Parts: sequence; structure tokens; C-alpha cells
Amino acid sequence: MADDKKLTPRAEDFSAWYNEVVLRAELADYSPVKGAMVIRPWGYGIWERMQAALDQRFKDTGHENAYFPLLIPMSFIEKEKEHVEGFKPELAVVTHAGGKELEEALVIRPTSETMIYHMMSKWVQSYRDLPLLMNQWANVMRWELRTRLFLRTSEFLWQEGHTAHATAEEAEVEALKMLGVYREFMEKWIAMPVVTGRKTDSEKFAGAVRTYGLEAMMQDNRALQAGTSHFLGQNFSRQFDFKFQSVEGKEEYAWNTSWGVSTRMVGGMVMTHGDDEGIVVPPKLAPVQVVIVPIVKAGDSKAEAIHHKADELGGMLTAQRVRVKVDHRDHLSPGAKFYEWERKGVPFRMELGPKDLDKQQVVLVRRVKPEGGERKEFLPQHHAISMLPDRLDAFQRELLARAQKRREENSHRGVKDWGEMKEILETKGGFVYTGWSGDPAVEARAKEEMKATIRVIPDPEFRSGTAPTTCIGGGGASKMEVVWARAY
Amino acid sequence: MADDKKLTPRAEDFSAWYNEVVLRAELADYSPVKGAMVIRPWGYGIWERMQAALDQRFKDTGHENAYFPLLIPMSFIEKEKEHVEGFKPELAVVTHAGGKELEEALVIRPTSETMIYHMMSKWVQSYRDLPLLMNQWANVMRWELRTRLFLRTSEFLWQEGHTAHATAEEAEVEALKMLGVYREFMEKWIAMPVVTGRKTDSEKFAGAVRTYGLEAMMQDNRALQAGTSHFLGQNFSRQFDFKFQSVEGKEEYAWNTSWGVSTRMVGGMVMTHGDDEGIVVPPKLAPVQVVIVPIVKAGDSKAEAIHHKADELGGMLTAQRVRVKVDHRDHLSPGAKFYEWERKGVPFRMELGPKDLDKQQVVLVRRVKPEGGERKEFLPQHHAISMLPDRLDAFQRELLARAQKRREENSHRGVKDWGEMKEILETKGGFVYTGWSGDPAVEARAKEEMKATIRVIPDPEFRSGTAPTTCIGGGGASKMEVVWARAY
Repeated sequence: MADDKKLTPRAEDFSAWYNEVVLRAELADYSPVKGAMVIRPWGYGIWERMQAALDQRFKDTGHENAYFPLLIPMSFIEKEKEHVEGFKPELAVVTHAGGKELEEALVIRPTSETMIYHMMSKWVQSYRDLPLLMNQWANVMRWELRTRLFLRTSEFLWQEGHTAHATAEEAEVEALKMLGVYREFMEKWIAMPVVTGRKTDSEKFAGAVRTYGLEAMMQDNRALQAGTSHFLGQNFSRQFDFKFQSVEGKEEYAWNTSWGVSTRMVGGMVMTHGDDEGIVVPPKLAPVQVVIVPIVKAGDSKAEAIHHKADELGGMLTAQRVRVKVDHRDHLSPGAKFYEWERKGVPFRMELGPKDLDKQQVVLVRRVKPEGGERKEFLPQHHAISMLPDRLDAFQRELLARAQKRREENSHRGVKDWGEMKEILETKGGFVYTGWSGDPAVEARAKEEMKATIRVIPDPEFRSGTAPTTCIGGGGASKMEVVWARAY
Repeated sequence: MADDKKLTPRAEDFSAWYNEVVLRAELADYSPVKGAMVIRPWGYGIWERMQAALDQRFKDTGHENAYFPLLIPMSFIEKEKEHVEGFKPELAVVTHAGGKELEEALVIRPTSETMIYHMMSKWVQSYRDLPLLMNQWANVMRWELRTRLFLRTSEFLWQEGHTAHATAEEAEVEALKMLGVYREFMEKWIAMPVVTGRKTDSEKFAGAVRTYGLEAMMQDNRALQAGTSHFLGQNFSRQFDFKFQSVEGKEEYAWNTSWGVSTRMVGGMVMTHGDDEGIVVPPKLAPVQVVIVPIVKAGDSKAEAIHHKADELGGMLTAQRVRVKVDHRDHLSPGAKFYEWERKGVPFRMELGPKDLDKQQVVLVRRVKPEGGERKEFLPQHHAISMLPDRLDAFQRELLARAQKRREENSHRGVKDWGEMKEILETKGGFVYTGWSGDPAVEARAKEEMKATIRVIPDPEFRSGTAPTTCIGGGGASKMEVVWARAY
């Protein structure tokens, strides 16, 4: 069906724009179960490409996939004290199965540390069995009150890596390595720049010793936590009696890490690149990178030749490993097709009409106007075909550069005091870099007064040239620089 | 750890052999939740290859992946009368979530027809939106009393294809097409021959008009239903008000199909090819196709050169797209490594010792003795490397041929009467081909008296040269030939 109604502009209501564009780009739909969404083929195709790229990186770094049960005994969740506090309010509980009430209630996994470290304790005897590097692609459930498509849904798809090591140092290296893998993926594939660093205690994972995170800035200047990696210490291995015999022949508890990213990243992609026409899918993630639209009017004598040429050009692109679709549908006008593919964020459109056929040219239209250039180009057919792989790469890079520029323009350093921070966060938003004493009371006050949290204690490369000397909370000295923002 | 305890021989106790080999090949393990298993990396690696091959075939035949919610409202399951009768006793029910009792209980999907046709009804308006060809890779749950690793677990991984069509004929063609896709996959990838055909009414899917199935014969001569494809007619579209406007402008209910295969196929692979040393993984599914074992004794002056050469040969195999592992572990003897990799079913082992190094040769050992040949060969290194891709192909083909031969040897045609069928099924097992009147009372009697069911009404190519004329149940004429067996 033609669907050429305009989207609510981002500037008018970013939140309304987001919901509309996710639905109308056919990324996802609401389901009849509260808080659960349906991921439609276009959205799932993007997720599949995210999965494939990450999975390859996990394997390249020595991890193996496995699969653990969906249901976890309630008693497992309750073993780690912080873990149960963090997750219990969000659990979905199975009380009946096979027509009977269960003796012990089972919960749908909100995350799988408890199950996985229980199982690993059976498989590992000595240091020779370590490290154990595993990953699982799975669905998890966290019952949320307020849900948003992709960003916060009761059920979501993710991967959770779980590893066990003989030493704390090795586990720490692993947690940081996977943070790096995530960062590279988010920058190179989603074209979404992230600030990496450590979370404060109040923002860390329930059960972790330390949590590292990746924070992206959306177009409404709010932060999105795009992924986390945890150094779990021996918190879970002690609860699940996960021991091994060390080189010296002593029994020791294993050191663990866990790390995960989810379908939330699709929401991050939408809010990083989308515009008032629709979403913009970075070429590496696009199920279709180039759509070829034959421009044919009813009764056109060249119709057959145009469709044929469109297929021929499509075949040439496929041979270059470009993902291409030739849109032959005859009940939609070319204009309706343009709208549809722009809304769905296909990187390039190639138009081919009767004049183009005669001149052996095509019209190539990029989804986003290049800096200082035009969206539309008239190109000889062979030229257009041969240059497309490079054009796709260039578009991918430009999307990242554009997002980086936007983030820097909305990052505020050298902020004087509490009042200025508040004003920035309430009017413009963005990332505010300040000094912090380490006192959680300052975090609590910011949350209360300006709905902002410390997103990360940034890694060195993100820190300000001149380190802040005083804590933004007033009074004391700064112990570390931190990044504040309002977050999803 | 070295684990060289012998497996229970198949001939002694096939069922015990199966459980042992699945655990000791590290395909899977029991979990603390009744009936749910953990799929370990070796088993998951095999499943990943099954997934990749099937997924490519689904896409090649025009299907797109999507993802639908895990939880389904109880009222959805109850809409289709036969569907609820079939599935209600096996449901796992979520009654509480987010700390509260739910207004309506939600069930963990046992299959997703109800949810998917509800959603499709929102997306389809006219015949132009059809066919809608979707697939989902997901976990499902059917609470079973007696479970077996991979064969029958409360939670399992599978894919479920769901399609909607404008005509009954088109849907029927789709259901049969996917049956063909499954068959090709099972023969070419799992090297597991199957008899295809239609299920009788008493064995069809709860809610289907017709079910088609694929039946494989395990080494204990029992049948394994390896996959099914259903023509659903309008049974679900009527319950979920899934209508479309036809070419003629009339409102009509859509015609649906669904089809699925699961992790059960891993169990089928084990019981088709395994032997008393362990499992045998067909090369196309093997996470490791060739393991290179350096034969090095303590203090061997050539140790370093041997390890180095092993890596070099490994690199050459990788360059030929052979999946190879060089087993450098120094705390295990070569013999212990041989046992381990044989148990895990790696197709080829390459041994490299000091003498081999001098002679520029390797010892190549195939997991299964070739017909009329030897398992072990001494080959010049370059020769071994260059021929391995062909050897892997040949091994793959031989596994299928061997399984086909075994199946034919245990297929019984021209069976005289009820007594002979009973004797065959009670002593030898296998597939028994007979005539059938179509009377379900005959099926009920066979189930009662010999624990056997009609596995399929076989497709033409599997039927006997001379069609049986009388029903095996006695008395009446045969209306169709059927295949009886005891089944998993």
C-alpha cells in the first residue's frame, strides 16, 4: 500500500517520531502481550547482520556458543544477594506446567549468570580447563512498567557472554577486551560512536564487582547505554561453588566476566541516523543496500526493456556482493516506492527510466545528502555499478563522522557549577563532563534535581584535556572526571 | 581430562549407549531444571551448521526471518479447538510477573501459529500482500513427562515457518516444497535418509488439515520423526480473522502452512551414524573436520619442529576451507586425544610424529572404516592436504549410502498378515510396509498390541513395486500403502 503520510518531525516530538518511524519502517510492531514486540523482517534482517558480525568477533577472540535453559529455579536467583535485589521486581514466574502446580517456581531468565556458573562448576576441575569462554544468543525477560519498542521491552533478544578464568587479572583483561570488541562493532557497523568507561557503583550490574559500559548520544541528546561488560570477581563462583584446582594444587574459586548487547542497538541505530523521512540504515547493516526502481508509465513501449535492464544491473551489483533489490511491483508509482524505501533507510536508490535507458545512464540517489554534495547523480551505468561498493563504504564512514561531530557539538566540558550543569541538561541535554568526589549523594541529588545520572567514568581518551579539579556537587575535590546525561 | 572408559555397546543397551554418548561427546548435559538440557559448544556447533544450511535454503525459497513473542495469551491457544486439545496438557504457564498476579495467564509458546496468524492479519489487506513467507528461529516449550536429551526435552530450539497464501493450491504447494527442502537437507547434510509422506489423521498436527512428515530409521530400528510440514487450510485464519481482499474484490480467509525442524535432528544424527567408540559427525556438520595430533614424547628433540609442522599443515587445510584443529595440549597423551576426538566424531585425524616429519608424510585416519578399505593411511604431506576436501565429500556420501543400505535392510515389504507384522516389530523392528483400509481402529489396535503407529502414507517413490491389495488389519481392501514402526 502507498503510505505517504509525513512523519512527526523530530524537532516537534522526538519520542512520537521514534515510535512512528519504527512502526512505519516496518522494523517492529506491537504485540497483544503487554511490553512484548514483534520484530518484523526488515528489523530482524538488521539484527541478523548485527548478530553475524558480533558472532564472528566472538569466535575470533576464542569464544564458543552454547545454549542454557530458559527457565531458572527461583532459588538460584536468590543465591547472590545483590543479584536478586536487582532482578526480583522484574521477574516473570512460571508456577504451573504440564497441568500441575510446580513444587518450586521457575523464572524466565532475566540473564543467565546463575544457571551458567552452576553448569560451569560441573565442567571445570583444574586450571587446565580454564579459561572457559562461552556465549549464548537468547531471549530474556525483564518485566518493565514502561516499555518502548527495541529500547525497553519485557522480552528482548541478546547475547550474553560468560567466561571463567584462573586469575582476577585475566578476567579483568577479558571484560575490557569485550568492551573493545563492542566499541569497534558499534563504530564500524552501526556507525554509532560511543564513550566507554566504568560505571559508578550505583549504576553497576546487580552482582558485578565492576561494570564497564558504552554510551551513545541520541539525536535528542539523551544517552543510550548500548552495552555492558562486567567483571564479576568471585561473587557468583562462591555462591555456585564453582572451584578449580590451581597450578599449585590449591582449590580456588573461579573469576568470572559477563557481557551483553541486545536488540536495543536497533533502537540506537534509529535514533542515531534517522531523519524526518525515515530511518537510515548504515550499509553494513542494510538487508538491501541498493534498490533499483524501474520508472515505467502505463503503456510505455520500453517497459519490458527497462525491467530487463534493471535486472541486468541488479545482477551486476550482486556479482560485486552488493545486496540489491529490483522493485518490479506494478501497483505502486515510482514516487510511492521512493517514499517506502527512504522510510526504510535503504542507503542508495537507482532509478532507471526510458531516457536513462537510451543514454545508458542511471540516476543514483543517496539516502542522505553528502556534506557539500548532492543526493542525486546522473551516472553512466557501468560507472555507477563499479563505484557502488566504494560509495557504500564512504557512506558508512560519513555516517560515523556525522554522528561523532554531533556528539562533540553536544558534549559540554569545563562546566562551572551545579547550576550550569542543570541548565544544560534541562535545556539542551547532551553529555556534561565534570569532576566528581566519588560521593553517591551527589549522584542521588542529580537524579532528583535534573533526572541525570553518571553514565560513565570515561576511559582516558575521552577525558578532558585539563582534568576538572573540583567536584560538581560543590565543596570537595574531584577524584575523577565523569560524564553526566539524561538517559534512556 | 583423559576419559577412556568404554561406552556401553549399542547392541547391549541402545538407550544407555545414547545417553552416554551424548554426555561424553559433550553434545549436551542435564540441567537443574527437569526436562531442560544444556547444549554444550560441541553440540551447539553442529546445530549452528544445521541452522546456517537450512536458513540459506529458506531464504533461497523466498522466506524472511522475523521474531514473535515468547509468551502467548491463554485465550489465543484456546481459540482453535483441536490446537488447544493437543497442546494444553503440555503448557508451561506464567501467572505472575513484575511482582503481581497477571490478569490473564500467559503460556510459553509450544508453537506460534496463534500469535503469528493474529499478527499477519494486521499486516495483510489484499492479495498483493500475499504470499507472506516467514520463518522464526526460536525456543519453544512442551512440558513432557519422559524426556531424552535432544529427542524430547521440555524446552527445545527449532525453526517454525509460517506462510499465508491467496489460494489453497498455493499453500499446498508450499507445504510440499518445504517438505522437499527438509528432505534434501537431511540427506545431504545429516546424511540421514528419510521416508516422506502424509500423516494419518490420528498423527497429524493439532490444528492442521494435513500433515506431511519425514521419518528416519535409527540404528535400533525405531523411527524418528525428523520434521513436519502442515497444510493448515483456513483453520487458524478463521479463528484469528485473517482476511484479505481477493483479485475479484471479495473478502476471503487466508490459506496457511507451517513447518518445523528442531534440535531433535542432532539426536537423529547421533543414532544414525554413531558407533561404540562415540558419535560420528558428517563432515558438512562437523565444527572440526580434521584434527591434527602431534605425536610428541617428553624430551623429544623434534618436539618443536613437529608442533610447527602441524600448524603449517593446519594452515594449508584452512586455506582450502577445511575446518581444522591442531591439538597442542601437552598434558594429554596422543592416545587420550585419539579417544576424545573419536568420541566427538571428528571425521579425520591426522597424526604427525618424528618419523613422519623425516619422511614428509602423515598418518590419516578416518573416523569410520571405508567399505573394503582401511581406516589408516600413510600419505605424503602435500598429497594428504590436497586430497582432504575430496575425502571429506566422499565420507559424507558414504555415510548416507551406508544409512540408506541399513534402512533398506530393515524395511519389510510383502508382509502377509497381522501376526507377521507383530513378530517383525517385536523382534527386529524396522519399517513395515502394508496395505491399510483407512480405518483408525486398525491404528488403535496396532498401538495397543505392538506399540506401533503408521509413520507415513509414503510418497510414490517409497511405495512397494506391487501395491498391497488387502488391509493389514484383516478383512477389507487396502486403500493405501502405509509404513508402520515403533517410534521415538
